[in-house]
Amino acid sequence: MTTLPSPMLRALELARAAAQAGEVPVGAVIVDPATGEIIGEGANAPVMAHDPTAHAEIIALRSAAAKLGNYRLTGLHLYVTLEPCAMCAGAISFARIGKVIYAATDPKGGAILHGPRFFQQPTCHWRPEVEQDDANDIEAGDMLREFFRSRR
Amino acid sequence: MTTLPSPMLRALELARAAAQAGEVPVGAVIVDPATGEIIGEGANAPVMAHDPTAHAEIIALRSAAAKLGNYRLTGLHLYVTLEPCAMCAGAISFARIGKVIYAATDPKGGAILHGPRFFQQPTCHWRPEVEQDDANDIEAGDMLREFFRSRR
Repeated sequence: MTTLPSPMLRALELARAAAQAGEVPVGAVIVDPATGEIIGEGANAPVMAHDPTAHAEIIALRSAAAKLGNYRLTGLHLYVTLEPCAMCAGAISFARIGKVIYAATDPKGGAILHGPRFFQQPTCHWRPEVEQDDANDIEAGDMLREFFRSRR
Repeated sequence: MTTLPSPMLRALELARAAAQAGEVPVGAVIVDPATGEIIGEGANAPVMAHDPTAHAEIIALRSAAAKLGNYRLTGLHLYVTLEPCAMCAGAISFARIGKVIYAATDPKGGAILHGPRFFQQPTCHWRPEVEQDDANDIEAGDMLREFFRSRR
């Protein structure tokens, strides 16, 4: 029996690809926890895609829902290299994602631990489990810091 | 000189079309306030589109950004028949919309006056003006109430 690599490693690859395209490096992967199969994935792309909603999580959610032919992704797990913002937290809740695993925290724009803490709001009607991935937060955060340093 | 009809009337038409398609009736229109030109529009469609992010506002933002070839819609106005949720409020802020005009309020899922009150959060980095359209809130709200009543 082989151990599958963490989907977070694929999310980090997608974040690296975003940086190479000149986008803020964030990547996301949606996985069926029963099989380990990747159902959808996304790399942050608002500038290149001319789409203000093209965060990694939104692209992953849309691609997974298109693949399954269902706007509800009930119970699937979402791995993302950065704490989701309010837009993405809202979308995650609508899609009924079972669990969100994120690497770096985002005090400036995050909406899970920070700001609106959306999943704690009474107007949030589906609350996924949330886990912070300590094993990958430094790599995910360093990639973001390096990206912003290089553009100053 | 003729007076242009309010873009909210077009948003209400889009909401009616959503209801006819079996979707929660919400419509949105993005307008250039300098010319009155409609740059993008959307009718709520998550179920039919197999897309958890397919709220009226998101569709309108994506279509306007695609049309202009720019993820920033700086200064444009967004008319929507229902108070935006957290997902849409986040997207509106990323797109740098200048002003949001909404008709019905949404105590259950809204994120402007309710729940996260996203535009008031320190993690919100672009705050549009916000106006509630008293002239159309009853029609927009009645459409939603009728939709949910008919599905009980």
